[in-house]
Amino acid sequence: MALDNTHIKYFTKLLGKKDAISDKAHLLAYSYDATRLKYAPEIVLFPKNEEQISAIMKYCNEHKIIVTPRGSGSGFTGGALSHQGGVILCLDRHMNKIKDIDLKNMLVVCEPGVVNLQLQKTVEQKGLFYPPDPASEAFSTIGGNVCENAGGMRAAKYGITKDYVMALRMVLPNGDIITTGKKTIKDVAGYNLSGIIIGSEGTLGIVTEITLKLLSKPQKQKTFMAVFESIDDAMESVYRAMASGVSAVAMEFLDNLTIKCVESKFKKGLPTDAGAIIIGDVDGNVDEEIDYSLQMLEKIFMQNKAREFKVATSQEQAAGFWFARKNASPSLAEYGNKKINEDITVPRAVLPELLAGIAKVSKKYNVVIPCFGHVGDGNVHTNVMLKDPDEAMLEIGHKAIGEIFELTVKLGGTLSGEHGIGLSKAPFMHLAFSDEEMNLFRAIKKAFDPNNILNPSKMGL
Amino acid sequence: MALDNTHIKYFTKLLGKKDAISDKAHLLAYSYDATRLKYAPEIVLFPKNEEQISAIMKYCNEHKIIVTPRGSGSGFTGGALSHQGGVILCLDRHMNKIKDIDLKNMLVVCEPGVVNLQLQKTVEQKGLFYPPDPASEAFSTIGGNVCENAGGMRAAKYGITKDYVMALRMVLPNGDIITTGKKTIKDVAGYNLSGIIIGSEGTLGIVTEITLKLLSKPQKQKTFMAVFESIDDAMESVYRAMASGVSAVAMEFLDNLTIKCVESKFKKGLPTDAGAIIIGDVDGNVDEEIDYSLQMLEKIFMQNKAREFKVATSQEQAAGFWFARKNASPSLAEYGNKKINEDITVPRAVLPELLAGIAKVSKKYNVVIPCFGHVGDGNVHTNVMLKDPDEAMLEIGHKAIGEIFELTVKLGGTLSGEHGIGLSKAPFMHLAFSDEEMNLFRAIKKAFDPNNILNPSKMGL
Repeated sequence: MALDNTHIKYFTKLLGKKDAISDKAHLLAYSYDATRLKYAPEIVLFPKNEEQISAIMKYCNEHKIIVTPRGSGSGFTGGALSHQGGVILCLDRHMNKIKDIDLKNMLVVCEPGVVNLQLQKTVEQKGLFYPPDPASEAFSTIGGNVCENAGGMRAAKYGITKDYVMALRMVLPNGDIITTGKKTIKDVAGYNLSGIIIGSEGTLGIVTEITLKLLSKPQKQKTFMAVFESIDDAMESVYRAMASGVSAVAMEFLDNLTIKCVESKFKKGLPTDAGAIIIGDVDGNVDEEIDYSLQMLEKIFMQNKAREFKVATSQEQAAGFWFARKNASPSLAEYGNKKINEDITVPRAVLPELLAGIAKVSKKYNVVIPCFGHVGDGNVHTNVMLKDPDEAMLEIGHKAIGEIFELTVKLGGTLSGEHGIGLSKAPFMHLAFSDEEMNLFRAIKKAFDPNNILNPSKMGL
Repeated sequence: MALDNTHIKYFTKLLGKKDAISDKAHLLAYSYDATRLKYAPEIVLFPKNEEQISAIMKYCNEHKIIVTPRGSGSGFTGGALSHQGGVILCLDRHMNKIKDIDLKNMLVVCEPGVVNLQLQKTVEQKGLFYPPDPASEAFSTIGGNVCENAGGMRAAKYGITKDYVMALRMVLPNGDIITTGKKTIKDVAGYNLSGIIIGSEGTLGIVTEITLKLLSKPQKQKTFMAVFESIDDAMESVYRAMASGVSAVAMEFLDNLTIKCVESKFKKGLPTDAGAIIIGDVDGNVDEEIDYSLQMLEKIFMQNKAREFKVATSQEQAAGFWFARKNASPSLAEYGNKKINEDITVPRAVLPELLAGIAKVSKKYNVVIPCFGHVGDGNVHTNVMLKDPDEAMLEIGHKAIGEIFELTVKLGGTLSGEHGIGLSKAPFMHLAFSDEEMNLFRAIKKAFDPNNILNPSKMGL
């Protein structure tokens, strides 16, 4: 239902004028996320604490007012957009504190609005390590990371957000406050609610406090780069290296199209005739352990027809290796001003088939599709690039993406390794899930949110 | 409702006589689990495949017949007991095959009835490694491990069952067949159903196929033993070692009472005046990495007043170190023929407080409470030992356990690190969960199982 003055007054009284904003200028600022879709909310609320969130949810549940939670709005699929109006519940203004760094139990307790990189840096000052490092780390929040189950470059060795969440506090759609999980590695009492809340895209509850496991920061790290004639050989190398027991922290690749556009923009002397480059880090506490990993990688890569395998001998050289990967995304503009980017993920062993299939789709539709990404975990950022596209061209781009999704699912992969479904991938859910599965998703949604007020109709629900 | 002849005929026709058994002798055999509680089912079914399970569930859902799934019945909390009669659905007779060992993607696909140790050994023959190693590994099934989220000794370094489940196939209470998860490290499309099914104690669905992540088997391993004057010093050492970045594969302890009874039974020359012993393994692919870990452990243990730190120089000596831990549980009979054993778990840093609190409870009720277990992850096996107890003595024993549960929860711990809640811990759920949390558990149960036919009223639901 649309908000009326009574509702606006209630929220203003509860939070104060500064934290309950409904003027047009502010509403506009909260109409966007990284999808560039645009939907204005009716009011933006900035709660100061869990009690206020509980009061807001209780009120909205009673009055059937739609609530969309939001961190920093860096999502790629529209999860934080209020496409049906109502309230945007914004958690990054006040609820952005690191509450405790527990050195003895190696964990950190924080509010949802803490920015990922800030958390990483703060715990690293204490010798601890929070591995999940989404590309959005400089601005995305831990609350958003939990709700999207964010990954990152270090996932191949260190896993993703779900592997670090030990406990959550949350406010349910009816205003109830619950906790789930403990500060213990083992906890099998009651249903593992955290398990389903992580990655639920803000549809089941408002996470108000997050307890994350930390690791001890490895003391040493080295960076390598390998150049391959063909993308096939590079992909083969990746899964063979993983199967040999070498856990590279990150294993990232650029295909030929991506190499070319980075080189064209930055002139770093990249091999523009290469089929692919793989860049990665290995880490550990002991030199011999790192040397062992690098020797294994070199051996396996060379056996799989790498043209070159280099280890950086200085921090500057390591930064140079990483430069190409870190500037891959912005360099793609070379191929067009409209990018349809997806984050499909497949079992590592079928990466060669996936990349070959994408090349076929590219040819069929005559569109440029540079690919790069986290091959250590089979996660490929696939970019359909279009130049000043008209409607017809856009449709062709979306058809190409549709075929790539179909191929991904056929290869045992997933529509999304990192970005979630939100609004923008909802039309493809039928490719990946049966009616029975969708029915169960809806039943679970109803168990948490019987009035369907929290971020409704996201994820194709 | 009670089964009548029509139902028995239906099941017999569906599965054949050999796999639908309702004679008294067989029913008796399926009345027990490791709790020694006893409840006879009305029929025991041994399905051959997922289709049969789907037919059984559909029929039982329509006729409101209670179904209790069962692996090998090794659970400690009665999760596999049919305390309200109905069907026992037994998954270890036919559905016990390893379907695929995928070397390229490093994963294994198996049926629920595969025994844990058989799976471990089979994948190790291929150089791969499945870390979760519950004490019941020689007989407990992977299906049971998933439903209880089994841990084990290697949890401190390698995590527990939930850290290895990549995908599940399951039959819902209404007979629908669904899959959840992919053979990919990252998958954020749709709700993470696996997250809540793991550890759900067979109350949400029948798991019919499990895809598990495997690691590469570390090539080297060494075993250490440390002797401490006091249990406090030992507990301090554990969390300090973990915080230093050393990941021992296992870190197990025996308290003085446990040391004494093992020594009394086996005469191995254990230090019966010690406050505690810690035994553990470190592993890796490179000698220097293992040496580094052992040096760090020795340094930290010695700083925390270890009396002795020894590294085994042969496999025989390593087996000798482990002998005490592996024989701890059976040796406790020295203190009584009735054992009330629990698997409480606390954040590592409060282990000293927990052990001190247990000592107080022991004194207050004048009962012997030897403790041992997985201190690397804060999981303490707590054993209230009673000799030929009468009703009054049993009640005292249960009161003592009740106080230990209260202390555990107060210290931020959990009622169960490994065994689950089932029937036997259900009376303590109120200590750990609020009404709001229990309501949500019930709503989730209802979303999966609206007719409440699948393992009802377990977990205090």
